[in-house]
Amino acid sequence: MSLYPPGEDWDRLLYLAGRWAVGYRARVSSLPVLAQVAPGWLENQLPKAPPETGEPPEKWFEDLERLVEPAVTHWNHPGFLGYFGITGSAAGVAAELVSATFNVNGMLWKTCPALTELEQVVTGWYRQAVGLPQEWFGMIADTASTSTLLALGVARQRAYPEVRERGLKDGPQLRLYCSQEAHSSVDKAAMVLGIGKENVVRVGTDAAFRMEVGLLEEAVVKDLQAGYKPFAVVATVGTTSSTSVDPVREIAQVCRKYGLWLHVDAAYAASAALAPEFRWALDGCELADSFVGNPHKWLFTPIDCSCLFTAHPETFREAFSLHPAYLTPETSGVPDLMDYSFQLGRRFRALKLWFVFRAFGTQGLAEQIRRHVDLAREFGKWVETSHDFELLAPIPFSVVNFRWHPPGVDSEVSLEAANRRLLELVNGKGRVFLSHTVLGGRFALHLAVGNLYTDQQTLRAAWEDLQELKESVFHT
Amino acid sequence: MSLYPPGEDWDRLLYLAGRWAVGYRARVSSLPVLAQVAPGWLENQLPKAPPETGEPPEKWFEDLERLVEPAVTHWNHPGFLGYFGITGSAAGVAAELVSATFNVNGMLWKTCPALTELEQVVTGWYRQAVGLPQEWFGMIADTASTSTLLALGVARQRAYPEVRERGLKDGPQLRLYCSQEAHSSVDKAAMVLGIGKENVVRVGTDAAFRMEVGLLEEAVVKDLQAGYKPFAVVATVGTTSSTSVDPVREIAQVCRKYGLWLHVDAAYAASAALAPEFRWALDGCELADSFVGNPHKWLFTPIDCSCLFTAHPETFREAFSLHPAYLTPETSGVPDLMDYSFQLGRRFRALKLWFVFRAFGTQGLAEQIRRHVDLAREFGKWVETSHDFELLAPIPFSVVNFRWHPPGVDSEVSLEAANRRLLELVNGKGRVFLSHTVLGGRFALHLAVGNLYTDQQTLRAAWEDLQELKESVFHT
Repeated sequence: MSLYPPGEDWDRLLYLAGRWAVGYRARVSSLPVLAQVAPGWLENQLPKAPPETGEPPEKWFEDLERLVEPAVTHWNHPGFLGYFGITGSAAGVAAELVSATFNVNGMLWKTCPALTELEQVVTGWYRQAVGLPQEWFGMIADTASTSTLLALGVARQRAYPEVRERGLKDGPQLRLYCSQEAHSSVDKAAMVLGIGKENVVRVGTDAAFRMEVGLLEEAVVKDLQAGYKPFAVVATVGTTSSTSVDPVREIAQVCRKYGLWLHVDAAYAASAALAPEFRWALDGCELADSFVGNPHKWLFTPIDCSCLFTAHPETFREAFSLHPAYLTPETSGVPDLMDYSFQLGRRFRALKLWFVFRAFGTQGLAEQIRRHVDLAREFGKWVETSHDFELLAPIPFSVVNFRWHPPGVDSEVSLEAANRRLLELVNGKGRVFLSHTVLGGRFALHLAVGNLYTDQQTLRAAWEDLQELKESVFHT
Repeated sequence: MSLYPPGEDWDRLLYLAGRWAVGYRARVSSLPVLAQVAPGWLENQLPKAPPETGEPPEKWFEDLERLVEPAVTHWNHPGFLGYFGITGSAAGVAAELVSATFNVNGMLWKTCPALTELEQVVTGWYRQAVGLPQEWFGMIADTASTSTLLALGVARQRAYPEVRERGLKDGPQLRLYCSQEAHSSVDKAAMVLGIGKENVVRVGTDAAFRMEVGLLEEAVVKDLQAGYKPFAVVATVGTTSSTSVDPVREIAQVCRKYGLWLHVDAAYAASAALAPEFRWALDGCELADSFVGNPHKWLFTPIDCSCLFTAHPETFREAFSLHPAYLTPETSGVPDLMDYSFQLGRRFRALKLWFVFRAFGTQGLAEQIRRHVDLAREFGKWVETSHDFELLAPIPFSVVNFRWHPPGVDSEVSLEAANRRLLELVNGKGRVFLSHTVLGGRFALHLAVGNLYTDQQTLRAAWEDLQELKESVFHT
């Protein structure tokens, strides 16, 4: 039996993978952005059983191109304008290759000092680059869902320290607050934490979709009077639908007044603060107890890379630290990152952010942010100056929410139907991909710029497709 | 401003990363396994501030070799014999490069049909390869900590359906059961879920560290009488310390009798069942409600890849499904994987397992498993036949727990001190890395075989170092 199976020919495999990656990057712009396959298309073409013996790698890569690629929705395509536009930059991809080659698990400092220390260094760079307090403790989680779950778990620990050992049953009825526009991960965190979705109080927003702080305070006071225990507020900097920015400084004052943990979800918009003219977005965030920003959203880092910061690392440890006999800390003066999460396994994600910073530099990153915002605003102008499209939200960053509003069609139901159909036609054509949302009860087309290769020509294509295909909406 | 910053030279970056990876693989065997640096060694050599402008990639890779590598504990080294031995195979690493290049997020089927479908295909292959029920639903999570958290969250949902909306406060006092040898992730899940660590009942084990089912039933009955609500049992197939296998079939009978959710944590040992002679390890697992096996442990797949299976996908959706306006399912008859987790983001991990299966084939995988077990048992024989070392647990798979027991030293305190010192000396020498645990109150040296390149010579080196360095224990 050979010690070195076919899967271990590093030269050949990395050559094949590298050649595929370069080829994919070269052709991705000409592929349809949204996968145009029917459900089951891929599954039905693959064997139901695993191979008994190894197959030559050339065959895997052939299947990758022939079977997998057509079933991929190409997030790394310049025409991908849905949700939040993202980029897995070559620098980030190369770092992922390095990370997988090391294949370490940074649960303790000693199980990979480089992982633990580089995570401290790059989260420090990130704090500086976007202007967050230098004394905060930083770590990298997989997703903002996890970061927000961790932060709210720690907030719960502070509000009711018995929770760790005894659970919630005999404790107070905890309540937490966020705006109507906050991300669903807040609800999911409350569900997982045993707080319950109905104890997430969704506070109303103003016309620009920002939390109304007066309503927040009213809700807190009302809950206190009703015997609930308010414990945390999630403020959002760059909401998922409209990228609105909650008034964090005022929210922080309410949090201080009532002793509530303030978690800031800046998963998307934290990156904007790389450019000085968008530094305003993080105003007041220095008052937060925890803060999440996702380099895998708008900072050219492949998924997963979610930076979680806190002013209270000791409370994280109170909530999560646990040392079984087979995993005892052995080095003093350094963090063992397993103490800060429910996840024991920890990938070497810091390498990605390290390479990205070194590839672009903070100025290069700021230039891209600026370019993306300019592009979004230019698209916004086309919408505003057209006779039959309209904006549905301001454009603070690189996301445009708009809709087609053909003259004479005025019911929300008809407008939604028309825009849904238009969206389907545009995405079916495949030059660009847009997503949708609902803002103030109105169905919106959602266009997000975040890819390094998205340019004016891409947005021009989106606009042309919308203009061309709107003609077909009522005729198909 | 250039649209294509230095970080986007795919050819050059993948060439550099590939060359580094091949070089690293060639030299890793000659590096000390455990990083030999002092705390702060890396952090102190890196700039405190991010670069303002991009730097040439050659410089990043130079720093990678000069500064990062010496601070890495080399999990991918043949001499890495701590915790569970693992391998990031070239096939898995190449797949990680492909995954990062696609950079997709499989939250909905339509956001990447290939991710969703390939995840179904490869978890199906995995089920077949280890002999689990074909009708189970499979998904891939990041770590077993997350998989177990998800599974117990769903078990909680079944036991108390109100939890999702109303939380735990007005519900029953939930209790869950696992053996004294079960992983700390069970405690952490109870902490996160708001059930509380003290409501994890740790059931005693027999002399071979397997859960005593009689004690389990006693504990459940006692809790029922005390007014608690037992809701779940975690059985372990391959415990972290000794790789013992709980009697799953008998545990399942208790679960059926009392209506408890059975979650099987086979994170490490599920892979053993690839080889027919170890299929016994999963006996009774077909009766589980959920099951986790980690290809990133003993199946040559780079971290992260944790396969989570369930007989009740609909209960997963009841616990976790939530559709904000910006993320509504649009395709019927296919799973939207965001409905099965608190994490919205989902990496394309299935590619790794797909490549690994195709590289090795099930027979090739089984051969490696068999080879690893043979190696561990051979090492066990050396221990058994020596006059001053002893085994502290049976060797069902590829892990050996043993200690040095010099004649005349008999107090547990002295034995622990001597073995701790011996471990320090061996790991400090750097040819191999062992970890430790505690079994039945006795401090154990823990040797785990799981790397493709670990061979008899590696274990011989470990044995030689133990023999040589034991002489220094009482003289340093």
